[in-house]
Amino acid sequence: MAQDTGFDAPTGPEGSSLRIGVIGCGRIGRLHADIIARDVPGLALGGVADVVTAAADGVSAATGAPVMTIDEMLASPDIDAVAICTSTDTHVDYIVAAAAAGKPIFCEKPVSLNLAEVERGVDAVEAAGVPFMIGFNRRFDPGHVSVRDAVAEHTIGDLHLIRITSRDPAPPPVEYVAVSGGIFMDMMIHDFDMARFVAGSDVVEVYAKGAVRVDPRIGEAGDVDTAVVILTHEDGTFTTIDNSREAVYGYDQRLEAFGSEGMAVSDNQSVHYGRTFTKGGAIAEPLPWFFLDRYLPAYRREWEAFRDYLVSGGPSPAGGNDALQVTKIAMAAGQSMREGRAVRLTEIS
Amino acid sequence: MAQDTGFDAPTGPEGSSLRIGVIGCGRIGRLHADIIARDVPGLALGGVADVVTAAADGVSAATGAPVMTIDEMLASPDIDAVAICTSTDTHVDYIVAAAAAGKPIFCEKPVSLNLAEVERGVDAVEAAGVPFMIGFNRRFDPGHVSVRDAVAEHTIGDLHLIRITSRDPAPPPVEYVAVSGGIFMDMMIHDFDMARFVAGSDVVEVYAKGAVRVDPRIGEAGDVDTAVVILTHEDGTFTTIDNSREAVYGYDQRLEAFGSEGMAVSDNQSVHYGRTFTKGGAIAEPLPWFFLDRYLPAYRREWEAFRDYLVSGGPSPAGGNDALQVTKIAMAAGQSMREGRAVRLTEIS
Amino acid sequence: MAQDTGFDAPTGPEGSSLRIGVIGCGRIGRLHADIIARDVPGLALGGVADVVTAAADGVSAATGAPVMTIDEMLASPDIDAVAICTSTDTHVDYIVAAAAAGKPIFCEKPVSLNLAEVERGVDAVEAAGVPFMIGFNRRFDPGHVSVRDAVAEHTIGDLHLIRITSRDPAPPPVEYVAVSGGIFMDMMIHDFDMARFVAGSDVVEVYAKGAVRVDPRIGEAGDVDTAVVILTHEDGTFTTIDNSREAVYGYDQRLEAFGSEGMAVSDNQSVHYGRTFTKGGAIAEPLPWFFLDRYLPAYRREWEAFRDYLVSGGPSPAGGNDALQVTKIAMAAGQSMREGRAVRLTEIS
Amino acid sequence: MAQDTGFDAPTGPEGSSLRIGVIGCGRIGRLHADIIARDVPGLALGGVADVVTAAADGVSAATGAPVMTIDEMLASPDIDAVAICTSTDTHVDYIVAAAAAGKPIFCEKPVSLNLAEVERGVDAVEAAGVPFMIGFNRRFDPGHVSVRDAVAEHTIGDLHLIRITSRDPAPPPVEYVAVSGGIFMDMMIHDFDMARFVAGSDVVEVYAKGAVRVDPRIGEAGDVDTAVVILTHEDGTFTTIDNSREAVYGYDQRLEAFGSEGMAVSDNQSVHYGRTFTKGGAIAEPLPWFFLDRYLPAYRREWEAFRDYLVSGGPSPAGGNDALQVTKIAMAAGQSMREGRAVRLTEIS
Repeated sequence: MAQDTGFDAPTGPEGSSLRIGVIGCGRIGRLHADIIARDVPGLALGGVADVVTAAADGVSAATGAPVMTIDEMLASPDIDAVAICTSTDTHVDYIVAAAAAGKPIFCEKPVSLNLAEVERGVDAVEAAGVPFMIGFNRRFDPGHVSVRDAVAEHTIGDLHLIRITSRDPAPPPVEYVAVSGGIFMDMMIHDFDMARFVAGSDVVEVYAKGAVRVDPRIGEAGDVDTAVVILTHEDGTFTTIDNSREAVYGYDQRLEAFGSEGMAVSDNQSVHYGRTFTKGGAIAEPLPWFFLDRYLPAYRREWEAFRDYLVSGGPSPAGGNDALQVTKIAMAAGQSMREGRAVRLTEIS
Repeated sequence: MAQDTGFDAPTGPEGSSLRIGVIGCGRIGRLHADIIARDVPGLALGGVADVVTAAADGVSAATGAPVMTIDEMLASPDIDAVAICTSTDTHVDYIVAAAAAGKPIFCEKPVSLNLAEVERGVDAVEAAGVPFMIGFNRRFDPGHVSVRDAVAEHTIGDLHLIRITSRDPAPPPVEYVAVSGGIFMDMMIHDFDMARFVAGSDVVEVYAKGAVRVDPRIGEAGDVDTAVVILTHEDGTFTTIDNSREAVYGYDQRLEAFGSEGMAVSDNQSVHYGRTFTKGGAIAEPLPWFFLDRYLPAYRREWEAFRDYLVSGGPSPAGGNDALQVTKIAMAAGQSMREGRAVRLTEIS
Repeated sequence: MAQDTGFDAPTGPEGSSLRIGVIGCGRIGRLHADIIARDVPGLALGGVADVVTAAADGVSAATGAPVMTIDEMLASPDIDAVAICTSTDTHVDYIVAAAAAGKPIFCEKPVSLNLAEVERGVDAVEAAGVPFMIGFNRRFDPGHVSVRDAVAEHTIGDLHLIRITSRDPAPPPVEYVAVSGGIFMDMMIHDFDMARFVAGSDVVEVYAKGAVRVDPRIGEAGDVDTAVVILTHEDGTFTTIDNSREAVYGYDQRLEAFGSEGMAVSDNQSVHYGRTFTKGGAIAEPLPWFFLDRYLPAYRREWEAFRDYLVSGGPSPAGGNDALQVTKIAMAAGQSMREGRAVRLTEIS
Repeated sequence: MAQDTGFDAPTGPEGSSLRIGVIGCGRIGRLHADIIARDVPGLALGGVADVVTAAADGVSAATGAPVMTIDEMLASPDIDAVAICTSTDTHVDYIVAAAAAGKPIFCEKPVSLNLAEVERGVDAVEAAGVPFMIGFNRRFDPGHVSVRDAVAEHTIGDLHLIRITSRDPAPPPVEYVAVSGGIFMDMMIHDFDMARFVAGSDVVEVYAKGAVRVDPRIGEAGDVDTAVVILTHEDGTFTTIDNSREAVYGYDQRLEAFGSEGMAVSDNQSVHYGRTFTKGGAIAEPLPWFFLDRYLPAYRREWEAFRDYLVSGGPSPAGGNDALQVTKIAMAAGQSMREGRAVRLTEIS
């Protein structure tokens, strides 16, 4: 019984796994399908669907799961929950349809680039009372979780400051940038979520600066590639964030919380731990380049968390309000950057 | 064409993967079957076999590969190579049979606890001219490989010293210890292989000390649980090794090469890189506990190396002579410990 | 010959050291006197002066240098340069007097809490053409210098971001806070200097947030104890800074520069490098608590730099314009925090 | 009252510091004189002596302490203890003379290269009942002490293994090597002392291997430059040690203790903690090159320990038996290397 939703915990066939239907078989959909099919006890891949049939066929061949149309999947009694992994602009329509069909929903982030759309999706979920979780994979990274725990368990006392650095190894294609919603909605949204996740306190004000330093074509596409932000939380904590679209030394992902009794840090890991010492110094490996080298364990834990949420209920590991809040923060950041002033979240609607 | 063996490179059906047959479906066999089936482009799992049919059935169910008898597998034109993953005492019989059947062979370490048996297996392989590789997984760990490369590429100049620490998180069952061949044959054999692999020079002398410090029952079983060894290589390099059957802080695996121009180190990795700083100090995670948390990438690379060896030929990544040498070193270590003196490898036969 | 100043390089008695007179024998004056007397080849302690004679007597007893009045020191042909180590509010008067006396000047930071006063001091120095250096000790920390060098030598390409964390182990007495000029002028001024030093580019805009989180009495004294700032440099680089008056785990001093070709980091050092690994994890030492445990080498290098500057001329390692700029940044930060908006340096006068 | 010696604690003039007379004003004597004169509360430099008067004059000029003859020093009521810092072959004669004069003695290591001489010195000290401490500076390194404490306080449970690496940045002059007593007596003696210090258990057996790898002239001088040793302690603990006369990356000093409940490590420290991350990896500083960069704090703590030992009594921080034991271990190591077998300490006399 999912206590907070009043929704009956879905169960698969007697004694067997919960069957997940994956909607959208692009890069992230294939990843999720693969993890569900192979790595998570208690979950099974019940079917795959994509408007491009060939994409679904490929995942089906690799996993053995049947291809379905989306309508078939939502209607099927053999599908216990759906994972929405389509392009962002279609998320909310599928959320609404899945909620209407009474299916528990896992949805990739971001729910939508448009606040009204996020609200429409969240309203549909709440009206239907179905379990709903957003794929904020960093909430399941063991290092980041250890920082959150150090705050939640008061190991570092009262929280004063959070410091987040996220830098991608290389920028996405300019065509993607143009439709991405911008750096705050597309990239820093993960950090906004981390700030709320670690602090356990909502954000009330945002100040943002951005610049085009990596590639002028990103500027021509109307976006920035380098950004710094100060968030002020309801409890008085400050979060500083910096983002860059290109860190040539690898995928740089660091998180730090500082409080009255200490500091908790989630640091980068190296590709491997071989080092060479010569007259010129000590040389170690650069950081991992590929996001999965850092976050694959987090993607697995994400599905364990979804499974446990379906089975045991309780609050969503990353629910509708989380989507609303980070969307507002991203919008406030964009407005702050454009207007050159701090923007309060109450201004966003 | 495998140049060193005169063996024609096996090819799967036109344009497709090499089909591996796994003999022995215990823990390590299942691991290999799983990796072959899912993770290595160019390899496919052609079949699984076990004298205990139920074991093979389980792996078949998980991977979709057909169950065969061992005789069927060796006779099948649909099997391009075999992986021998049975209990150690049966390795050589299967090597001989597979060699007779003309199948390329991957064999788990150790080939045998008995030198004459190792020789019998190696002789059969050489007579048949089939590719042969032993599963010394550490040869494929990226950190350890970086140390070997620093020696081979002369980054650290002339090699003078190697230092190896291997400590298991917990001792095996005493019943296992009794039939394991002892700490030198069962555990330190990996380190003997690393010493030869890193140095690129054979071992000529061994001095060993051992003691029962972890568990008196290990002593009652005729073995030691704590050992230190000095190896002298043909080129004058010294290697020191220490082993313990129980490191409560995790699976401790370190390797260091020191030479005239520097030092190369392969260090442990942490479970994750979260840390907490308080008045009392900085607290980090212990080491991984489970050997796969450390060496899973090495097991994958091992199969890539086997594939490349089959396709491109060249010397085996870990061949028959490697098995002979480490068996002799382990025997010399045992004799040294018992007799309280250095033992030269020329004494072993 | 000090090229930039047109001032003749001072020389001590033939072949001997430059004789420094220390004005002000409090904590920092004693430290400088001790370093000059013992640790810097080419420098000698020529005399010590303090309006409180007993303070000067103590330093004289420890170092063997004669006690002088300030007037005597400025008039003495046996004093080649002076170090002004008095309380901040007296700095400029002594700068003016020393400049009038033609003495090269080392002055502790900050020159003054008042911009007009800083200008008066700098004007006097420029009018007299005497060498002038401010005691921004962090400019001489080897780790921080390595970051500056990585930027200046373009090792990390074009600079995009700087990230600075400075946290004191414990807050100063509240009475001190009340007259300190506030966290931006008293503490973060070091970080403003580092930002300019590392970037090699002036700051044009400041956004600051502050809060009282450590001790409410600091708030009652009109100051904050926790602050975050975003600086925008003339070349487009952003710097984020966070400060806290109390980090219970020690003196936390970190600096990072990020650019198109990489990242340079100056990290904390530990009290020592002993660690313990047990079932519960790996425990290391906390950070040094005392600022000299971190920066004593920097204080020594600072005097070497002053000596070299006197002997060889060239631009000051930390000159009058540096003092003016950081004072303006600190003022802009205070105004930004009070008014809740970004403040441009052109607004400050 | 020095309890263990029956010797009355020396006291300086009422309320003032203990006055140390330094015998021998070479490199190490100057270092000790400087530390005593400046850095240790409760100690004063009472005088300096050297058979080469000019050497004493230099130290006197730098410290202000009077020059004395050695006879004057031993007879002076103004000298409370002596520090013997002369060449090794003269140590015992001065020990005997100082003991006869009733002066507490600090003696640089090694006491003598000759066991009978060590015994003569120790006998004289015991007969006179004067406090006696050997300058084993590593016993006072904070990192090494933390390892000893982890053993002594049972933080890591029962001790099983010790692992020591000591490598010098560059070999000494060949002329020095010829009279040094050899690598075991000159260099590894520090590690033998560390093994006993950390284990708290005597060594009963030694196995040693040595080779000439760094410089053939060291071999021509009758010594080796590369050595590995296994020590067996009375309590069953094994210690492995490796030494090299030349580590081009700096002064490499590491120590590790492993036991039933964990591991304690004393690691190297870096010159500074600046690092650069680029596409090619992360580059850090090499190790310190100069022994004082690593051990200066240990030299200071050594004198604090000598002071406390004089004032409070108790066992010597490094006494006569320690000198005897490490001399025997070094002799056993030499014999083991020459004879190619393990040598028990009971064989040495």
